[in-house]
Amino acid sequence: MNKLEVTEMIMERKRTTGMTWAAIAEAIGMSEVFTTSACLGMNSMPRDKADILVTTLGLPQEAGMVLAEYPTKIFAQQIPTDPCIYRFYEIMGVYGDTLKELIQEKGGDGIMSAIDFDMKVEKVPYPKGDRIVVTMSGKFLSYNQW
Amino acid sequence: MNKLEVTEMIMERKRTTGMTWAAIAEAIGMSEVFTTSACLGMNSMPRDKADILVTTLGLPQEAGMVLAEYPTKIFAQQIPTDPCIYRFYEIMGVYGDTLKELIQEKGGDGIMSAIDFDMKVEKVPYPKGDRIVVTMSGKFLSYNQW
Amino acid sequence: MNKLEVTEMIMERKRTTGMTWAAIAEAIGMSEVFTTSACLGMNSMPRDKADILVTTLGLPQEAGMVLAEYPTKIFAQQIPTDPCIYRFYEIMGVYGDTLKELIQEKGGDGIMSAIDFDMKVEKVPYPKGDRIVVTMSGKFLSYNQW
Amino acid sequence: MNKLEVTEMIMERKRTTGMTWAAIAEAIGMSEVFTTSACLGMNSMPRDKADILVTTLGLPQEAGMVLAEYPTKIFAQQIPTDPCIYRFYEIMGVYGDTLKELIQEKGGDGIMSAIDFDMKVEKVPYPKGDRIVVTMSGKFLSYNQW
Amino acid sequence: MNKLEVTEMIMERKRTTGMTWAAIAEAIGMSEVFTTSACLGMNSMPRDKADILVTTLGLPQEAGMVLAEYPTKIFAQQIPTDPCIYRFYEIMGVYGDTLKELIQEKGGDGIMSAIDFDMKVEKVPYPKGDRIVVTMSGKFLSYNQW
Amino acid sequence: MNKLEVTEMIMERKRTTGMTWAAIAEAIGMSEVFTTSACLGMNSMPRDKADILVTTLGLPQEAGMVLAEYPTKIFAQQIPTDPCIYRFYEIMGVYGDTLKELIQEKGGDGIMSAIDFDMKVEKVPYPKGDRIVVTMSGKFLSYNQW
Amino acid sequence: MNKLEVTEMIMERKRTTGMTWAAIAEAIGMSEVFTTSACLGMNSMPRDKADILVTTLGLPQEAGMVLAEYPTKIFAQQIPTDPCIYRFYEIMGVYGDTLKELIQEKGGDGIMSAIDFDMKVEKVPYPKGDRIVVTMSGKFLSYNQW
Amino acid sequence: MNKLEVTEMIMERKRTTGMTWAAIAEAIGMSEVFTTSACLGMNSMPRDKADILVTTLGLPQEAGMVLAEYPTKIFAQQIPTDPCIYRFYEIMGVYGDTLKELIQEKGGDGIMSAIDFDMKVEKVPYPKGDRIVVTMSGKFLSYNQW
Amino acid sequence: MNKLEVTEMIMERKRTTGMTWAAIAEAIGMSEVFTTSACLGMNSMPRDKADILVTTLGLPQEAGMVLAEYPTKIFAQQIPTDPCIYRFYEIMGVYGDTLKELIQEKGGDGIMSAIDFDMKVEKVPYPKGDRIVVTMSGKFLSYNQW
Amino acid sequence: MNKLEVTEMIMERKRTTGMTWAAIAEAIGMSEVFTTSACLGMNSMPRDKADILVTTLGLPQEAGMVLAEYPTKIFAQQIPTDPCIYRFYEIMGVYGDTLKELIQEKGGDGIMSAIDFDMKVEKVPYPKGDRIVVTMSGKFLSYNQW
Repeated sequence: MNKLEVTEMIMERKRTTGMTWAAIAEAIGMSEVFTTSACLGMNSMPRDKADILVTTLGLPQEAGMVLAEYPTKIFAQQIPTDPCIYRFYEIMGVYGDTLKELIQEKGGDGIMSAIDFDMKVEKVPYPKGDRIVVTMSGKFLSYNQW
Repeated sequence: MNKLEVTEMIMERKRTTGMTWAAIAEAIGMSEVFTTSACLGMNSMPRDKADILVTTLGLPQEAGMVLAEYPTKIFAQQIPTDPCIYRFYEIMGVYGDTLKELIQEKGGDGIMSAIDFDMKVEKVPYPKGDRIVVTMSGKFLSYNQW
Repeated sequence: MNKLEVTEMIMERKRTTGMTWAAIAEAIGMSEVFTTSACLGMNSMPRDKADILVTTLGLPQEAGMVLAEYPTKIFAQQIPTDPCIYRFYEIMGVYGDTLKELIQEKGGDGIMSAIDFDMKVEKVPYPKGDRIVVTMSGKFLSYNQW
Repeated sequence: MNKLEVTEMIMERKRTTGMTWAAIAEAIGMSEVFTTSACLGMNSMPRDKADILVTTLGLPQEAGMVLAEYPTKIFAQQIPTDPCIYRFYEIMGVYGDTLKELIQEKGGDGIMSAIDFDMKVEKVPYPKGDRIVVTMSGKFLSYNQW
Repeated sequence: MNKLEVTEMIMERKRTTGMTWAAIAEAIGMSEVFTTSACLGMNSMPRDKADILVTTLGLPQEAGMVLAEYPTKIFAQQIPTDPCIYRFYEIMGVYGDTLKELIQEKGGDGIMSAIDFDMKVEKVPYPKGDRIVVTMSGKFLSYNQW
Repeated sequence: MNKLEVTEMIMERKRTTGMTWAAIAEAIGMSEVFTTSACLGMNSMPRDKADILVTTLGLPQEAGMVLAEYPTKIFAQQIPTDPCIYRFYEIMGVYGDTLKELIQEKGGDGIMSAIDFDMKVEKVPYPKGDRIVVTMSGKFLSYNQW
Repeated sequence: MNKLEVTEMIMERKRTTGMTWAAIAEAIGMSEVFTTSACLGMNSMPRDKADILVTTLGLPQEAGMVLAEYPTKIFAQQIPTDPCIYRFYEIMGVYGDTLKELIQEKGGDGIMSAIDFDMKVEKVPYPKGDRIVVTMSGKFLSYNQW
Repeated sequence: MNKLEVTEMIMERKRTTGMTWAAIAEAIGMSEVFTTSACLGMNSMPRDKADILVTTLGLPQEAGMVLAEYPTKIFAQQIPTDPCIYRFYEIMGVYGDTLKELIQEKGGDGIMSAIDFDMKVEKVPYPKGDRIVVTMSGKFLSYNQW
Repeated sequence: MNKLEVTEMIMERKRTTGMTWAAIAEAIGMSEVFTTSACLGMNSMPRDKADILVTTLGLPQEAGMVLAEYPTKIFAQQIPTDPCIYRFYEIMGVYGDTLKELIQEKGGDGIMSAIDFDMKVEKVPYPKGDRIVVTMSGKFLSYNQW
Repeated sequence: MNKLEVTEMIMERKRTTGMTWAAIAEAIGMSEVFTTSACLGMNSMPRDKADILVTTLGLPQEAGMVLAEYPTKIFAQQIPTDPCIYRFYEIMGVYGDTLKELIQEKGGDGIMSAIDFDMKVEKVPYPKGDRIVVTMSGKFLSYNQW
């Protein structure tokens, strides 16, 4: 059993039970984004959380061990074509240099970590139409000089 | 005079005067992210704002007209190599499918607009080390069915 | 059952029954273009329409649910080689900048939406030989300035 | 003098005089799309039309000859990044197979010509917001069998 | 049954019976080039010709219908490596601009059609060694100006 | 002086004098295709022919030596976008395997040489519209077995 | 049975019997390089030699016919990563222009044929450590001028 | 002064004086291949040899120092298009796996060095036409196991 | 049985027994890095070591022979996306020219061998957080001049 | 003045004065690797160190400010071709998965930082020939789970 097979089992159980990602995340007591990403095979889930998930969705026992394994994060280096995902790459293309200018103006020569990192996705009502709000937070790391 | 030349003039004035992006944004009464992106040539600035910027930084009059022109947003489709920018693409690679799952779970078949869109970058103090917080907000758009 | 399998079932039934896309579209009361694109797995069909389609073509019940799911729109970023499709990319290559010039001259800094969008394909008789007429219509969206 | 230089001259004169593409097209009695594309160097303009354009915009005499030359139509095979142009490629990616299905259902094994071709761009008012309408028309060509 | 499967059946029957492409083409009364290309799945064969082919090679009845279907012409956009095919791409690389210069000198701004097109391949004896002669013929199409 | 500069001189003289490639080829007593390709820098011209060309077009003496030099034949490995040239690559994509099948059926395991090679381009009147006829001829070479 | 399957059979028999390429080549009376390349599917073996090979290695009768078929020589256009093969591409990258300079200095405008071609690989003892010696020989071909 | 400028000076002097690579190599007492590659900027020449070259061709004194510098060997990773160079890449594509099989059969798990390496190019008369013979020799290196 | 299958068996046994790479390396008396790379199929293991490994992990006898075979080292030429591996490529991108400058300053025109090479990976405690230390060692090779 | 211009000035002064990287590093009291990388424009140098460098090499005052600026680290995503640099990419291709296995076995799910990072290059005498030893050290970072 590997991460891909566990993802397929989860998607199948999700469809059958009608559970949302929000409900699954709440069941294991972790965030929606992290829970979803670990279920899609892009993060390792703490073993105890993985075991609750296995119980919640009625997965085979071995799935807990697989969810807790360290993934090899493989993704296409070509920009994805699905419009919902593409728009984020377009934002990065348009605002990438802006992000660098502002992060380094605020913190000096360094980066926002993608490892010590968390993210949140919300839908927020708004007079001219609902908005999606994505909040990313990562530790600031300074370049070493030696 | 074109947008590239105006960007170079702004960068030169910024270095000489020591003004930050934060100060420039405040001077024209717009956000840091939008101001920076327009100065880097990736957005068109409202003409009146552009004229204040020209006065603030002591740029030639024509620069105001150029800043207000509609840009052709050209960016490399290869992932950038600068670590500060690359980390955002890594985040998109790891969390792209997660974003789609959660946005469409919350809003139905559709996308977050990258046109009716705004963004904010902050540095937030935190016990284990300062964090960078990036907040994106875009209108939710449903696919048409006809 | 996934969208690819449903598409194959539809193509097989279409070949057996001799129904055209025009006839299928009429049966479910939607446009030819949208109906075809949803049958090819590139759009989600309203559930009630999907159920009529299932009945019309004699597909298994589950196919209705699959047709209504939100697709991940994956397409090659390389230009397709089939001459009938390639010609449209050639048109975009030749007229892409022209489209931008005219759309922004008419509407200001912004774009034609590909989400709030519809399209029509017709064959029109003409003295020197029939012509294909393709009509696209998308909402004009202005860039946000904040 | 080459086509690129003439395009730059036209853009400069257009900015100075404030003439729109619509006005330029009307002055020479040709369509907006064809006029714009020829001014951008992607089509050859009939010599007499080119000469009217030269007079209208006050260009040097030689520009008329250059506008009438047969261009080598060079465009990047990578999908352009500007959002206004990208959306059309996204439409082609999503609807390319649909176009082939419907054109060949209506006309048999063949294509829509991109040579014997014309196009129109309009902004159309609409209750929920203005729409951009693009209409393409090309001669249907059947594959030869010999 | 699809075009790929029919091609494999034809190749297998061809090997077994020892029939050449020349013999197959003669049997159905069409040219060698067109017959071969349709058997390789790159053209649609007229239904009556396809039925003769089916009889000639002893293929299953359904193969005739498949041979008559409109193919999606998919070919790699990378230059092929087989030396016999590569040499033609080398010729195009060396002589592509020459072809454009001479075609447009003879016919004005336009192209040689690849749709209303035919081709012939011959081996011709010659004192210093046999030569391969390839003859292509396509309708000249003028660019539309509107 | 290099081949690119000589090509630009020839194009300029050609425009000024109104001489066609056909006339230039006749003046030096070589074929249209070879003459054009050598003038475009893709073949080395025999020195005596090059000197006649220099006289005919009134080029500087040194140009004759440059035309006779052995060129490095550099061409993009991406398929060109100009429709007049692209159509030939489309033909190669569609008929490449057909060419290999027929050449090797006629000659055994081998290729058509692109070095011991010549080509001809003609416009031929035809009831349904003029046709372009391209004739290629190359020596058949057998693979060595040792 | 195809060339890939025959290659796998040969590799399997080679491993079982412990025969070297040198021994196989000697058994059929051809060179090591040609024998190996034909066994790997990159050349067509004369039918009588193929039949000896079949007997020598105890392959099924049909394998002889397959070894004698004309291969489609498909190889990746990306540089291979295996260090033993990569080094040869590195040599070509460093010495490619040198090879052209010296071949054309010695033979005039032309090439070394890769069709009328043979090659030899030897290990030669040498005081500072054994050396690999690769010798390539191909017919010189002059460009045609017509 | 850099290596590219020195190469251009050498080519210019070579054209003016009519000296061949063979003559230059003899003058400095090194091989044709190494001399040519160093003159083309792909190898560093021993300082004393470089100084003889400078005298022989009448180059400025500084050129000797530049020829002796360690080059950064930059070459396109795309296969070159010039037919004379391309044929060597075709040979590598066809015979790359064969080379690995034979080198490792003779020497064990290892490679032929491209650093401790030399090469020779000759034209050899032959009844059916002259042949080009290229001989490469590199030290055999075994993989370390630790 | 091939190297990929042996790798999968090893990974499966490793998971079941809970043995670390460190323990496996110690059992066969080789380094961690070399042992791991050979188990992943990227190096050939000495036959006697391979046989100990087979015994240690309870693998089938044939696996020993496969581990000792010479691998074809195939790896993607695209930069890998897994963050743990990507960081090393980022280091190479940032410090590649620095490495060349310092190696050639210390050793003259030459390279560090990747064949006569070894490597070590350690985790080292450190006040501000543990560090990973990677040590590479390769023989210095001088370019040949001949 | 920008980083590229400062690098060129440094290289020019280095050549004139004959100073090594080792000497420059010692003069400013930083490591060889960091000093070289900052001089090549890939790191920002502390302002006081930069000023010492300016004095040491006799550069214009402004160069100190430029050396201290935060660089945009741009490097080709294609693997470099220079053999001295390529070998390190080859090592990464061969040992990349090994590095991940061992780092995560020692530290859990995480990475070695390329930001909080340092490196050392040495030449070490050894009986069978000098060796290059490269030592990298980066902070271990654990993935966040939230």
